[in-house]
Amino acid sequence: MSTTLLWDRFRQYFLRYSDFGFTLDISRMRFPDGFFEAMQPKAAHAFDAMRALEAGAIANPDEGRMVGHYWLRTPELAPTPEIRNEIEATREDVAAFAAAVHSGKIAAPGGKAFTQVLVVGIGGSALGPQFIADALGTTGDRMKLHFLDNTDPDGFDRVFAELSDTLATALVVVISKSGGTKETRNGMVETEAAFRDRGLDFAKHAVAVTGAGSELDKVATEAGWLKRFPMWDWVGGRTSVMSAVGLLPMALQGLDTAAFLTGAAAMDARTRVADAKANAAMLLALMWYYAGDGKGGKDMVLLPYKDRLVLFSKYLQQLVMESIGKKLDLDGNVVEQGIAVYGNKGSTDQHAYVQQLRDGVPNFFATFVEVRKGRDGEPFAVEPGITSADYLQGFLRGTRTALYEGGRDSMTISIPDVNAFQVGTLIALYERAVGLYASLVNINAYHQPGVEAGKKAATAVLALQKKVRSSLSAEPKSVQELAAACEADPEAVYHVLTHLAANDPKVRQISGASLDIERFSAIV
Amino acid sequence: MSTTLLWDRFRQYFLRYSDFGFTLDISRMRFPDGFFEAMQPKAAHAFDAMRALEAGAIANPDEGRMVGHYWLRTPELAPTPEIRNEIEATREDVAAFAAAVHSGKIAAPGGKAFTQVLVVGIGGSALGPQFIADALGTTGDRMKLHFLDNTDPDGFDRVFAELSDTLATALVVVISKSGGTKETRNGMVETEAAFRDRGLDFAKHAVAVTGAGSELDKVATEAGWLKRFPMWDWVGGRTSVMSAVGLLPMALQGLDTAAFLTGAAAMDARTRVADAKANAAMLLALMWYYAGDGKGGKDMVLLPYKDRLVLFSKYLQQLVMESIGKKLDLDGNVVEQGIAVYGNKGSTDQHAYVQQLRDGVPNFFATFVEVRKGRDGEPFAVEPGITSADYLQGFLRGTRTALYEGGRDSMTISIPDVNAFQVGTLIALYERAVGLYASLVNINAYHQPGVEAGKKAATAVLALQKKVRSSLSAEPKSVQELAAACEADPEAVYHVLTHLAANDPKVRQISGASLDIERFSAIV
Repeated sequence: MSTTLLWDRFRQYFLRYSDFGFTLDISRMRFPDGFFEAMQPKAAHAFDAMRALEAGAIANPDEGRMVGHYWLRTPELAPTPEIRNEIEATREDVAAFAAAVHSGKIAAPGGKAFTQVLVVGIGGSALGPQFIADALGTTGDRMKLHFLDNTDPDGFDRVFAELSDTLATALVVVISKSGGTKETRNGMVETEAAFRDRGLDFAKHAVAVTGAGSELDKVATEAGWLKRFPMWDWVGGRTSVMSAVGLLPMALQGLDTAAFLTGAAAMDARTRVADAKANAAMLLALMWYYAGDGKGGKDMVLLPYKDRLVLFSKYLQQLVMESIGKKLDLDGNVVEQGIAVYGNKGSTDQHAYVQQLRDGVPNFFATFVEVRKGRDGEPFAVEPGITSADYLQGFLRGTRTALYEGGRDSMTISIPDVNAFQVGTLIALYERAVGLYASLVNINAYHQPGVEAGKKAATAVLALQKKVRSSLSAEPKSVQELAAACEADPEAVYHVLTHLAANDPKVRQISGASLDIERFSAIV
Repeated sequence: MSTTLLWDRFRQYFLRYSDFGFTLDISRMRFPDGFFEAMQPKAAHAFDAMRALEAGAIANPDEGRMVGHYWLRTPELAPTPEIRNEIEATREDVAAFAAAVHSGKIAAPGGKAFTQVLVVGIGGSALGPQFIADALGTTGDRMKLHFLDNTDPDGFDRVFAELSDTLATALVVVISKSGGTKETRNGMVETEAAFRDRGLDFAKHAVAVTGAGSELDKVATEAGWLKRFPMWDWVGGRTSVMSAVGLLPMALQGLDTAAFLTGAAAMDARTRVADAKANAAMLLALMWYYAGDGKGGKDMVLLPYKDRLVLFSKYLQQLVMESIGKKLDLDGNVVEQGIAVYGNKGSTDQHAYVQQLRDGVPNFFATFVEVRKGRDGEPFAVEPGITSADYLQGFLRGTRTALYEGGRDSMTISIPDVNAFQVGTLIALYERAVGLYASLVNINAYHQPGVEAGKKAATAVLALQKKVRSSLSAEPKSVQELAAACEADPEAVYHVLTHLAANDPKVRQISGASLDIERFSAIV
């Protein structure tokens, strides 16, 4: 396309929300003339579905739940006064609690002020706080955040070592909506032990964010933890960052939660409009549809040109893939939907995988995120008249051009700065885009049925481990013998055995040249 | 497939290197009977090409270079005594330098011991050191590593703030093979300024790792930097972690570089064997070929179940995508090759995107990485008879099973522990797999021609910025007017203008409802 035509196309497909400095450019996506018209019925349906969702419909039919994350930043939209009150009371509660912690009114046993926050959570209970903490953190933060987001004992030990003596002034925030997530429970139990080992009273450091009446809620109540904050069944984990899940760590860190919510509400207001070309969230959804033919045929590569946004793609990986990656559509047809998401940051990634983006398999579309402001304070010239930020911008524009010339499509989002307000706008934008896209392809974006299979299979592995362990004796036995004794799949037994041999000091593996002559025993 | 058949298949396709505890299981990849036989001619050709490469052939024909990263851990294989000597001398030099820094023999001006290492580098000059530092670091490290790996001024400021007063005892290691990488140069210039601002003499803190005679080499020589280490044209950036690029930061951090090299050499020895079924690297390459039909048709999802390996996928993203993502094959045909790589860690990712892997678009194959040892020291039971590590293992095995039952293929690599030796084996394994795969699909894995287009376009953007800036005056002008004055693409001019308005205090943007009535001016 000629420069003139591109300029025309740019003017036509460049959306601006001037009130908060947001722009979205979809001109370098090669959708054909008539695309918007063709998509109009689907888009209209998606706008209807979103309107119903925001009004309190059971938008998650499989779980019979409302989907209310938009109310979190605009409580006056909540479908009942009770929900509105809960949201507002929790917000106030979070702010008051953080203020009391900062002032020392709520302090560690002995009266020392809390200095560290150890967040124990996984998935939706960790990715939001991690992204926010990294995007907005400075050396002036009120408290320093640490995370346990797995069930890796070495990972736990590492964070405990990092905390070291500051464990005595660490506030532990355990986050689990269901209260039954095993990784989080293990993190909590190991943290409790780490406190005990140092003669510290865990309950006097502990805070829970969880559903009322959950297992975790009961533990926190019985042990007399410092505080409990609610999670509601109408907020999904991956969209919980504007509930206490995200707000509490943010407030403790000293970040501006009010601006964060205001930013999200501002983007919501703009993307609630049922006019596709004026609606940035619908434009994203339509572009995803166009790129992957409504079937996830292309990966979404996210390239923010700003160090502070390096975790944004990880956050979106969950938000998009867990929401869109579904086997069945709402009518029960097998559709195997999804969009794979990856990316880190520009221009760094230009020195990693952009070689493939430019020249290799054309199985993706790119989303550039431009942050217009380079740095606080005076510009600094790295050569006459040119700053590091000019280079950053040059690399973004240069890569966009190079991709386009190579036949690769991209969109560009531009924001003025990385602050709490703007991060709120970005999250709201993608939350809404995901919801709209789900309607375009007729799936439920708000459940995660596929996660259960892995959990069930894991439970079976743990049960088998106990069985195998108790079948071991001083007499060396083969995998087949042990499998027969346990009436179990020999391969599963073999994996349990090698795991036990590596971790249980009493289990021995006598290796041979092949699996068939391998033997296992246990010291009794 | 029945449990019995799966057990047979597992025994058939489970490769073990018992001498260092490595295993690779390809039994859950659904390649058909006869696959290995059908691939035999291609595999034989790949073994031949690798043998020639290791013997010093010009394996990177486009750039007329040898490809020598395997010599770095086995210098006696180098094709000339000169190369062997250079490798060995550099190793000794790195060790001696790190020892002198640790002992305080080489110290900061004023005699204080260096405590911090600030690595300035990007892509191949950062990802290796970052991966190693995170995988092997402990609170007992001799020095703490920091990185400048972009040209984001806010990102620079952030690291300088983090270093704060310790800048006075920071050793700066500037890494650039060509010596002309702009991001790295900007990082160096900004670091120099940060030192100057604090009254510190940068040259007395600075070390270069670069090609002899490069721009950086000249700067370092003229300014009298502490030390220069060589990079060679027969080592590519993405395979440079076993040259001074990776060894110097590692040695300064106090990690075991000798074990790292030994581990890589051990894997090299095992994967040099021209027998596909006994060669883990060839098995990986063949499985990539099978999964994506030799065309990158499936993404590679990497799931290490260990916090310390969370950066492994980022490291492999570069190694695989920059090597394999090529437009032309060795005969000049357009092939648009590549394999997209992403992933973080398990079981964390099970709470993010594994929903999509299990249920959604089947456009990937998974590689699990198991680390058999859970933690150092005594096992800790989170419930009777069960540890956090048992859960981690249960989730890995459970997810593998759930994926398989859902028709998704996976491989599983297992290593005994995360230490310098084992990390060396993993890197060597993937380096060789990438090289072999490149031969299977007949491409040059050792150049990156596609990166140039973006750089050139970026240079054009910077030149245009200067032109546009000098066209601005007190009188407000439209984008079209300024574009005409600069004889340039109005869209490119517009992007330059909004960037200038956000960063140059003298440039003004007078916004309107549309681009056409927008005006820009500058205070003269």
